[in-house]
Amino acid sequence: MSSSKITNYLLLEKHFSQISNLSNMLSIISWDYAVYMPKLSATTRQEELTTLSSIIHKKIASTKTDDLIKGAEDESHDLNEWQKGNLREISRQFTHANCVSDKLQEMYTKACSACEFVWRGARANDDYEILKPYLKDVVQLTREVSAAKSFALNVSKYDALIDIYEPSSNSATLDKTYSSLRDQLPDLIAKIIEKQKSEILLPITEKVDISTQKAIGKRIMEAMGFDFNQGRLDESTHPFCGGTSSDVRLTTRYDVNNFISGLMGIIHETGHGLYELNLPRDQLSQPVGRAKGMAFHESQSLIMEMQVGRSRHFIEFLSKLLKDEFGFTGKEYSSDNLYKSVNKVIPNFIRVDADEATYPLHVILRFEMEKLIISGDLDVDELPKYWNSKMQEYLGIIPNSYKNGCLQDIHWPSGTFGYFPSYTNGAIIASMLMNNIKKQHPSISEDLGRGDFSNLNSFLNKNFRNFGSLKEPSDLLKTSTGHDELQSDIFIDYLTEKYL
Amino acid sequence: MSSSKITNYLLLEKHFSQISNLSNMLSIISWDYAVYMPKLSATTRQEELTTLSSIIHKKIASTKTDDLIKGAEDESHDLNEWQKGNLREISRQFTHANCVSDKLQEMYTKACSACEFVWRGARANDDYEILKPYLKDVVQLTREVSAAKSFALNVSKYDALIDIYEPSSNSATLDKTYSSLRDQLPDLIAKIIEKQKSEILLPITEKVDISTQKAIGKRIMEAMGFDFNQGRLDESTHPFCGGTSSDVRLTTRYDVNNFISGLMGIIHETGHGLYELNLPRDQLSQPVGRAKGMAFHESQSLIMEMQVGRSRHFIEFLSKLLKDEFGFTGKEYSSDNLYKSVNKVIPNFIRVDADEATYPLHVILRFEMEKLIISGDLDVDELPKYWNSKMQEYLGIIPNSYKNGCLQDIHWPSGTFGYFPSYTNGAIIASMLMNNIKKQHPSISEDLGRGDFSNLNSFLNKNFRNFGSLKEPSDLLKTSTGHDELQSDIFIDYLTEKYL
Repeated sequence: MSSSKITNYLLLEKHFSQISNLSNMLSIISWDYAVYMPKLSATTRQEELTTLSSIIHKKIASTKTDDLIKGAEDESHDLNEWQKGNLREISRQFTHANCVSDKLQEMYTKACSACEFVWRGARANDDYEILKPYLKDVVQLTREVSAAKSFALNVSKYDALIDIYEPSSNSATLDKTYSSLRDQLPDLIAKIIEKQKSEILLPITEKVDISTQKAIGKRIMEAMGFDFNQGRLDESTHPFCGGTSSDVRLTTRYDVNNFISGLMGIIHETGHGLYELNLPRDQLSQPVGRAKGMAFHESQSLIMEMQVGRSRHFIEFLSKLLKDEFGFTGKEYSSDNLYKSVNKVIPNFIRVDADEATYPLHVILRFEMEKLIISGDLDVDELPKYWNSKMQEYLGIIPNSYKNGCLQDIHWPSGTFGYFPSYTNGAIIASMLMNNIKKQHPSISEDLGRGDFSNLNSFLNKNFRNFGSLKEPSDLLKTSTGHDELQSDIFIDYLTEKYL
Repeated sequence: MSSSKITNYLLLEKHFSQISNLSNMLSIISWDYAVYMPKLSATTRQEELTTLSSIIHKKIASTKTDDLIKGAEDESHDLNEWQKGNLREISRQFTHANCVSDKLQEMYTKACSACEFVWRGARANDDYEILKPYLKDVVQLTREVSAAKSFALNVSKYDALIDIYEPSSNSATLDKTYSSLRDQLPDLIAKIIEKQKSEILLPITEKVDISTQKAIGKRIMEAMGFDFNQGRLDESTHPFCGGTSSDVRLTTRYDVNNFISGLMGIIHETGHGLYELNLPRDQLSQPVGRAKGMAFHESQSLIMEMQVGRSRHFIEFLSKLLKDEFGFTGKEYSSDNLYKSVNKVIPNFIRVDADEATYPLHVILRFEMEKLIISGDLDVDELPKYWNSKMQEYLGIIPNSYKNGCLQDIHWPSGTFGYFPSYTNGAIIASMLMNNIKKQHPSISEDLGRGDFSNLNSFLNKNFRNFGSLKEPSDLLKTSTGHDELQSDIFIDYLTEKYL
């Protein structure tokens, strides 16, 4: 089509290309904050980050965006499929940003930044009292933000927050999915624990120096298809996948006494990284070229970590690689022992250390609490007590400290409410994806047993990653898994088959 | 005074605090570009950097700045000394930015970015032809920028460029200073070479692994007073001092076959870093809190590298430290041999490898060429020929390749014209500073011989670094050196005394 017919759309694209450039820099600076920044520079850097966030927010929420969207909508019959998708995603971003005033947005960003900073000390010192006033501010401002978004999106306040991270999802659907998990998981977990009781497990306690761990990690990342010319692996206190889609910055942490845990972390983050690196390359500067929300993003890390990394076939490859290429000789590195080690099910206080069977209960606990916090039915003062009672109800254990309880996660102190469901939804999608891939590539497990990721990557690229945000969530789910809704049964069946 | 009387000034401060936050992020991202960015991310990152630069330029050059400056000028009788200095610096930045249109600024930034990128390959392949069209663009646009600045500042085009890096300096003053150097240096250099001929020098060829070099470097940086809680040391192809005044990012390069060279580089960059870290802490977000131009900045690196790092007393400290703390045992590490090694005078093709006696001639050559390039009297086609003839005239050697000739420096390909004089002016100021310090602290050399930098740092903090941009250049020079103009004689005397 002639570009003169879509003048407004093209101006809108240019505007968002500039916004993308700024957001990308925010990402790189945030990575630097966590990885290389000297500790006394934190306060100044926070102010700098706030300035840039605020400029980005204003640009997205501007009258210019509004006018160009309206103009581009009038041109929509001349837009191609990608341009239409982009216009939809841009409108979505505009709606989310425009309904929050610059003033509220700035207060919220500052409160979150201050609270997150205090949380680091509070967690280290197991001191909930010191966090409380800051967390109250964050909760209050989050409620205001959610009210504004609720009005603009015409959904409930909590659903408006979910929508930030997982477009089109809502608490009614999640209630349904999670009630099925909550009904089935406790019994399943009990059976798995009973079965695993009789297994003999050789502990993996050999000290592995960090340079060897790095070498193993990079070797596996390369096998998985990660391109080090467009990304890096570094260290940080909390592992994450940051940077941009053309400059992916993964981090991990190394424990000399437990190298397998660090390695599984690397495999997880590499899953995120491969999604970013295989988003549609000619759309990267536009919202339609970005990942389709966080549940889908988590599906990409979890298919790599859980469906592949902890599978029997991949563990065979790993065991052989450790012996042949890195000289590990102990019996504990046999593929059978490694497999059992990385698939031990045990209720744990800490979400990020949880196995895949108990993990959803950690998420459900947080999901239920978030709903109450946002609706105003649960106060910051009451969090620890409520948390502990739910831990007892769902996992049968009561945290012995705040840091093993409601102080463990960065999410709430940093103002991230509505995100937690993405983890479990991602785990369910990952099981659905693998279920579908196995149908279409019956030899996929054998491939992975040889460390060959080519069929897996090409399936995921073609049916999932390359779409970016082009499709609606249900369409993307359908295309990649064969189902247009979350199927908790497939996840439960997967666990049952694997563990029982 | 009451803040209500200086409403405009305070709004102006707030505006520039935001600009400072953005500039600081640009610095950190530029550091990352040189140090950790994966190679295929370069093109995208350049676009991102251009977007941010352009936003900063627009903010400085905006009507908002103009209006607030005018308003603040009306309040000037109620401003304190720092606020007045800040208003002067802000006006200076506004004048420099506002006279260049957004369009020209963007074209210039893009042309420089493209040319610098091509230059990297051109230098590596010794290919001047490939650079020429890009360099012609940069030169053409630099001429346009200089014309705009010339008109706004009411000085010559080349002086308008000098003014970017060294406020209030101009080519008439430099002509005078440099003609004195050009007259005296060749004869002095010949005498030094003659004298050094008879010296016996044990070569320092022991391979030193990079981790040891890093440890030595950090040990020396700590002795010099560098605070690693507000800064870092990393590696890059071209050493530099980047980052921000509260997060100083130094880089160096390590050569396993020549660790002394890397160490001198670290000492040099640490001098820059100490200036940044000791700028007035409560003014860092404002132009008045920034360094006073690049000649003064170079004086801080060169006083550390040349006046201290290559002095007999400091070398005694270094020799002892290498033996006692790092187990170096060879005779070549005697303080006498180390001293001779780091003070060898020899005409060299490469500016950055030049000793302090020949270095000014490299700068004078570039200064003379820049004047001709900007005035339009020297074409990009003629650069190599002109360069080589001047090298023969001043240093008696003719480059055997482009990369040892006019392709060696990043400055012109990156659009930096008018900067080179700062190096030699900095060397002169460094000799003037040390001359003054020795008068006021007669035992300073003995201090440095013990690795004790406290008197040196406290003198420089009190009389130089802590002023930021508060004083006019001549006042700052007077306060810190006792003279209000460059004294090339002090520099020549210093060389004569040290070498002859």
